[in-house]
Amino acid sequence: MNESVHSLTLSALFPLIKDKQISPAWLTEQTLRRIESLEPGLRAFIRVLPEEAMEQSRTLEAEAVQGYIRGPLHGIPVAVKDVLQTGGIPTTAGSKVLEHWIPDQDATAVARLKQAGAIVIGKANLHEFAMGATTENPHYGTTRNPWDRDKIAGGSSGGSAAALAAGMCFGALGTDTAGSIRLPSALCGTVGLKPTYGAVSRFGCVPFSWSLDHVGPMARTVEDTAILFESISGFDPKDAASSRRPLAPDPIGKREDLKGFRLGLCREYFFEGMHPEIAGIVDRAMERLQSLGAEIREISIPGLSEAQGAARIIAQSEGYSFHKPMLQHASGQYSEDVRFRLEFGRQVSADDYLQAQKFRRKFIASTAAAMATVDALISPMNHNPPFPIGSVSPEQAIHNMFRLAKAPLANFLGFPALSVPCGFVEDRLPVGLQLIGKPFDDRKLLLIGDVYERSESWSERLARHISELL
Amino acid sequence: MNESVHSLTLSALFPLIKDKQISPAWLTEQTLRRIESLEPGLRAFIRVLPEEAMEQSRTLEAEAVQGYIRGPLHGIPVAVKDVLQTGGIPTTAGSKVLEHWIPDQDATAVARLKQAGAIVIGKANLHEFAMGATTENPHYGTTRNPWDRDKIAGGSSGGSAAALAAGMCFGALGTDTAGSIRLPSALCGTVGLKPTYGAVSRFGCVPFSWSLDHVGPMARTVEDTAILFESISGFDPKDAASSRRPLAPDPIGKREDLKGFRLGLCREYFFEGMHPEIAGIVDRAMERLQSLGAEIREISIPGLSEAQGAARIIAQSEGYSFHKPMLQHASGQYSEDVRFRLEFGRQVSADDYLQAQKFRRKFIASTAAAMATVDALISPMNHNPPFPIGSVSPEQAIHNMFRLAKAPLANFLGFPALSVPCGFVEDRLPVGLQLIGKPFDDRKLLLIGDVYERSESWSERLARHISELL
Repeated sequence: MNESVHSLTLSALFPLIKDKQISPAWLTEQTLRRIESLEPGLRAFIRVLPEEAMEQSRTLEAEAVQGYIRGPLHGIPVAVKDVLQTGGIPTTAGSKVLEHWIPDQDATAVARLKQAGAIVIGKANLHEFAMGATTENPHYGTTRNPWDRDKIAGGSSGGSAAALAAGMCFGALGTDTAGSIRLPSALCGTVGLKPTYGAVSRFGCVPFSWSLDHVGPMARTVEDTAILFESISGFDPKDAASSRRPLAPDPIGKREDLKGFRLGLCREYFFEGMHPEIAGIVDRAMERLQSLGAEIREISIPGLSEAQGAARIIAQSEGYSFHKPMLQHASGQYSEDVRFRLEFGRQVSADDYLQAQKFRRKFIASTAAAMATVDALISPMNHNPPFPIGSVSPEQAIHNMFRLAKAPLANFLGFPALSVPCGFVEDRLPVGLQLIGKPFDDRKLLLIGDVYERSESWSERLARHISELL
Repeated sequence: MNESVHSLTLSALFPLIKDKQISPAWLTEQTLRRIESLEPGLRAFIRVLPEEAMEQSRTLEAEAVQGYIRGPLHGIPVAVKDVLQTGGIPTTAGSKVLEHWIPDQDATAVARLKQAGAIVIGKANLHEFAMGATTENPHYGTTRNPWDRDKIAGGSSGGSAAALAAGMCFGALGTDTAGSIRLPSALCGTVGLKPTYGAVSRFGCVPFSWSLDHVGPMARTVEDTAILFESISGFDPKDAASSRRPLAPDPIGKREDLKGFRLGLCREYFFEGMHPEIAGIVDRAMERLQSLGAEIREISIPGLSEAQGAARIIAQSEGYSFHKPMLQHASGQYSEDVRFRLEFGRQVSADDYLQAQKFRRKFIASTAAAMATVDALISPMNHNPPFPIGSVSPEQAIHNMFRLAKAPLANFLGFPALSVPCGFVEDRLPVGLQLIGKPFDDRKLLLIGDVYERSESWSERLARHISELL
């Protein structure tokens, strides 16, 4: 079991822990050993937490022996993106500026994972202040893609995705302001959910752009992602944007087909600028969805390119507003790339910002109306395969970001969005499919993703890849 | 009854209508006649609605004859500030730009007043786009104070307050972005409530600054104000900021004393720059509150002057953002005063706006904490008596606004604030007392104001003044 345990899903692991066939302490120790071997070549973590994780695992083990199981993550090692606070443990947000900052309490999502029994095995690597999907990491090393170490893992939650894809954890937390959960999930062949805005608390997350920021689950399968999501979602008074609105219930539960589901396809914007092989892979995914019973209908969403511009204005303004005091005192500790991005925000007028937010309210309503006759939108997640690692200019980095995906739209809308693997370019580099749902329809999205995923073999291929990695 | 009916409160009128002692049609006709006599000297209305009001009154009369009473305003003539939409009836917002605009539906607050049986007798005068408390009205004539026609009525809801104080209506709607309900109420010797942000829908209100704008009731007594408030408050899906949170229940109901109530007194900021006679009047009001059993305790609120600056930045930015398209096409139709104010908003950066909103969130929390041990804050409403009518420069107008009151703080907080008469300067010009409550404590505020008011004779003096006016 030593080798293969790392390729198990957390849903498969949990019953083994519950039935005392696997011990949390043993599992944690094995996982730490694997990290020790793989981490130097991958840079998926900013900080591994061997002592803390082992101590947690012994507590959970003692509880399990007495028959006390905290929840569906009891004894499961998880990675937490280092932009999320961990009490007593440094939280860098991928930056030099916060290198020595030790928060005094856990982010709500981290606290809830622990309540469900998860063991935080390490703080996952990310781009500086979560800005950048395609750039190098100047402070903590660039995370490498476990499918091809010369390629980017994507970002900014690249450490979380790479740790999952390399079998160094069984679940992870990421954050997503413009695609940062979904893009690395797509590029690493794993699954990531950017939840509905307000469904998961951002308390304890170093902000990027508070009206676009989301915290969400990442895992190796949709089923695992759903388990993490159920553990972390729900109202939190500590996050002003947290919603009391309940999630729509799981529509039907486990099922094998998608009969009765309607998926909207908007060719404009979402399908532009795609790598030809990825276009073919996404076409085949749509055929598969149809063969599962889903009806695919073309729909039109007005205002998509304005939305992209407005999202950028909001991200820049809010980003600059948060960073301004630190920029004044520690400008030299920022990388050129991040300073370049923040500089745009300094120049935005209050009017531009408010017009963008006003456009946003109308766009949310018109998009919801355009989606009235479908259960979710379907689109490619990554438009191109992961780029080779290599330093690029700040201008080129932003250009690459647009070449990579049309991810920020779901942040602008606040609608839930799931990335699920749908194939491999050149039979070796993962491709993701994006499903965008209606507000608080996160569970429906996970259900559609789960049915699709189980009809294909991409998660088995990931498991095999993990087994063969060491 | 012909003469004295106009000085009755709506609470006194309603039972007479219900018991068929007064007919809605007769009352409306009498009120229209009175308006005809008084309006030329007061300019309280932009548009009187004789046909519409008479038609409404005949319908309500027919209903009353059949024993059907819509609600506690059945057959009562009210004035609606002309910044609130009335379906099929022009709504100017006091501007030249919107002079010929005819909305197709009523504002929610207007619709709810009508549902409760009110008759909209006219669209009350206001400053251009509700900007200005101390300035002249270049488009529709300057509203004159019924207590001294050479003095301002205050603004921007000056028409509503003057109409009430002259007996030209029995209740009114105003809006309040920086004191626009409370200031004219104070200067005209009437009562006005700026409700908790989110408690009364702003749907159908031409915006000034949407995060500071409030719609609220104005009347001759606190009891009447409470009746109007109960009719218009409550969740409305058409206003994005409307709250589903229920109001705190009326704490005790009608009572004669204030035993057990604690009122906070913050001398800093709220009591600075007061006219000496007004200072004495407010002191006597506080003594009266104490003699009614209320405990007054000094409290300190940190950040008051920063709050004033941040409120200004928000008002300017949001104001400019709304007006920009109209300014581009119809700049010449704006008065110099309003153009001058809007120009500030053009220059605000997104960062300044966002810092102001961030400060606001913290300030709301710290003020709520500072108010933890009291039921409400008490302060002077107007710091000076109404100024003489006369054109002033835009700079002087803003200076006068600050000399007049410290009103915008309650808008910045979103907390409920009530202005209730507390005396007369030189025994002839009204002075208001301000009570600021905690969020959704509007009913408690009205209760405190009602007990205070009934312990004094200011409302009888207003009734006498109305009787003697014609």
